[in-house]
Amino acid sequence: MFKKPTLLLNREICIENIKKIALKAQKSNTTLRPHFKTHQSGEIGSWFRDFGVNSCTVSSFNMAKYFAENNFRDITIAFPVNILEWSEIDELSGKINLNICVESIEILEFMEQKLSNRVGVFIKTDIGYGRTGIDSGDIEKIHSLARLVSNYKHLHFKGILCHAGHTYSAKSKGEIETIFLDSRKKLLKIKEELKGEFPDIIVSYGDTPSCSICNDFSDFDEIRPGNFVFYDEMQVGLGSCTREDIAVALIAPVVAVHENRKELVLHGGAIHLSKEYILDQHGKPYYGVALKFDGENWQCNEVIGKVSRIAQEHGVVALENMDAMEAKPGDRVAILPIHSCLTANLMESYYLNSGKRISMMPKV
Amino acid sequence: MFKKPTLLLNREICIENIKKIALKAQKSNTTLRPHFKTHQSGEIGSWFRDFGVNSCTVSSFNMAKYFAENNFRDITIAFPVNILEWSEIDELSGKINLNICVESIEILEFMEQKLSNRVGVFIKTDIGYGRTGIDSGDIEKIHSLARLVSNYKHLHFKGILCHAGHTYSAKSKGEIETIFLDSRKKLLKIKEELKGEFPDIIVSYGDTPSCSICNDFSDFDEIRPGNFVFYDEMQVGLGSCTREDIAVALIAPVVAVHENRKELVLHGGAIHLSKEYILDQHGKPYYGVALKFDGENWQCNEVIGKVSRIAQEHGVVALENMDAMEAKPGDRVAILPIHSCLTANLMESYYLNSGKRISMMPKV
Repeated sequence: MFKKPTLLLNREICIENIKKIALKAQKSNTTLRPHFKTHQSGEIGSWFRDFGVNSCTVSSFNMAKYFAENNFRDITIAFPVNILEWSEIDELSGKINLNICVESIEILEFMEQKLSNRVGVFIKTDIGYGRTGIDSGDIEKIHSLARLVSNYKHLHFKGILCHAGHTYSAKSKGEIETIFLDSRKKLLKIKEELKGEFPDIIVSYGDTPSCSICNDFSDFDEIRPGNFVFYDEMQVGLGSCTREDIAVALIAPVVAVHENRKELVLHGGAIHLSKEYILDQHGKPYYGVALKFDGENWQCNEVIGKVSRIAQEHGVVALENMDAMEAKPGDRVAILPIHSCLTANLMESYYLNSGKRISMMPKV
Repeated sequence: MFKKPTLLLNREICIENIKKIALKAQKSNTTLRPHFKTHQSGEIGSWFRDFGVNSCTVSSFNMAKYFAENNFRDITIAFPVNILEWSEIDELSGKINLNICVESIEILEFMEQKLSNRVGVFIKTDIGYGRTGIDSGDIEKIHSLARLVSNYKHLHFKGILCHAGHTYSAKSKGEIETIFLDSRKKLLKIKEELKGEFPDIIVSYGDTPSCSICNDFSDFDEIRPGNFVFYDEMQVGLGSCTREDIAVALIAPVVAVHENRKELVLHGGAIHLSKEYILDQHGKPYYGVALKFDGENWQCNEVIGKVSRIAQEHGVVALENMDAMEAKPGDRVAILPIHSCLTANLMESYYLNSGKRISMMPKV
C-alpha cells in the first residue's frame, strides 16, 4: 500500500464532519441535502444515511444517474439544466424524484414540451455571486417564472435555490457571516412575496463556508453544503474548519531530496492534487501542505513544508524545518489538498487504512 | 454526441504534428522517443509507428506498464525512480527494455541489490530547470555515477537525460533558442568527458518548446518532446505552434447566457479543462479560448471569448464580440485548452468526429 500516489481517507474524521453539519441542520429544523460532487462516491453517500440524510445534490446529470443507481431517490441537479440531456432527464425522472435548476422562460417552455415525466423545478437565484441565476432583486421575474411553471403538467415548481459562492473570496469569518445574513434577507424577501401563492415554496441555500461558520438555518428549508465532508486547506484558510478536520490526504512517495535547495521531490503532482493553489503571506502560490506520515496517519502538528511547485506528476516541497531534511527517497509524506473536490475527482478512489478501496463514479 | 463535455480530437492535425517532429528528428539523425504522458493512449501511441517510432517515454511506472501492454518494448520512465516500485520495475524489465532515471548513489545501490533483471539507467541531469537531477556542471559526480553503474550486473548505463522545463517560462522564441543552445553546450561537455570510457553514451534531450522551435538536434542521440502531439494555448503563447496546430478541444454545451454581463455559462469546468491558466494582457487569468463549433469542427478564426472563470463543472466565457451573443442554451462551443496534458488526463477519452471513442490508460 502507498507505493504510488494514493488518496487516504480518514473515515472517523469524515463521519464526524457529516455528523456536525447534520446536527446543525437538525437543530435548525432544516433539511440537509448535501452536495455529493465533493466525494462522488456511492459508499460515502451511504454514510450520510445514519444521520437521516436521504436526499442529495449533484452537479451533473451523470452524477444524478450514478447516485440514483446508488439508491438515492430524491436528487437535485444544482446546475443550470443542460437541455441537450432532456431525454436522459426525462427517463431518470420516471424512476426517482428529480429536480432541475432553471433561470429562463425559454428553457422552461422547452423542457415542459419535451418531458413526459414529472420533474421538480428550482428557480436559480443569484444572491451576489454573479455566476448563474436570476438576480435576487428581480422578484417580479422570479415570480413570473414560478407562475409559468405552476400551469405546467410535467414541470413542478419546488422553490428557489442559490449558491453563495462569494463566501469563497471572503477575507474573514465575519465577512462570511455578513454574506450569509445578506443572502438570508434576500431569499426571505422572495419567499415572503411568493408564499401566498406557493405555500410549499422551498428556499434552498448552500455553500460550505457559511454552513460551517453560521449556526441558525431555521429560515431556510434546506441547506446544500458539500465540501465539508472532507474539508481542505482552502476551508482552513476561510475559517470553516481546522486542519484536524481535513479527512483526506494524498500519500506521496519521496523520489528525490535536494538538500542544497531544501526541497523534496514527490511523486504527486497536478494530475493528483490539481493545480488549485493558495497564496502564502509572501504572495507565493502553494498547492498543498506536506505533513509527516507514519504509514497509517498523518500528523497535523508536524508540517514538513508546502508544495511550492507542481508539474504533471512531480510535486516539490519547500522544506520548512530542518528535521524534515531527514526524509529520504522511499519515505512517504501526506499532502493536505488545497481543494479536496478537485483532488478526489482526479484520484478516482479512496483508500481506508484497512486497505479497503472505496470507488467513485466512473468518468466514462 | 456532444451532449455533455467531450474531448474532440482532430486526427488529421494530430498526425500532422507527429509527422513534423518525426521528420525533424529524421533530418537530424536523432531518435524520437516521444513522451506519451500527454495522450496516455495506446491507440494514439500506435499512430507514431507509421513514422518509425518504436520507443517512448513515460512519467510513471504505471504508464510504462500500460504502454508495454500496448506493444511498446523500449520505454524510459523519465521520472526519478520510485524505489517503492522496485519489484514491479524488476518484473516489467524481464519483458521489455526498460530504462529508469537515477540521480543518487544510494538509489543505484538499492536498485542493483534488488533487481534480478537488466534495467537501463539514465543519469538525470539538471541543465538549469532546477527541479530534479544532478547539476550539469558537476561532471565529476555524473562521471562517478556512470562508473559505479558500469560495475553493476543488473543496472546498465545508458546515458544522460535532461528536461529543459525552463523553456516554459521563456518570454520569446529567442529565449527558447538560447536555452536550447545553452543546454546543448552543457550536455556535449558531459558527453565529451564520458565518451572515452562510455562510447555508447546516449544524450537524451526533451521538451516541446525547444523541439518545436529549434531544428538541429544532430548533437543529441534522442529527443523526448510530448505535448506537440496535441499542442495547446500555452504552446501557442510560447511560439511552439499556431492555434491551427492544436489537435484537441473540449466541446462544451452552453447552459446559460447572461447578456448584461456579456457572459456564457458552459458545462465545462475545472474537472474537464483543469485549473491551468494563462494571464492575458491585463494580468487576468483565463482557462481556455472559446471558439465557434459547427457540430463537426472548431473554427480557429471565430473566437467567441476567453474562459474567464472556472468552477468544478462551470466555465464562464467572457464574450469578445457581439455576434457571439447569438449563442443560446443548447449550443456547443469548442474550448482550446491551456494545457492539453492536464485536460486529456481529466477527460480520460477522446472522440473522433466519426463518433469513435479512443480510450486512455485507466487510472485505477
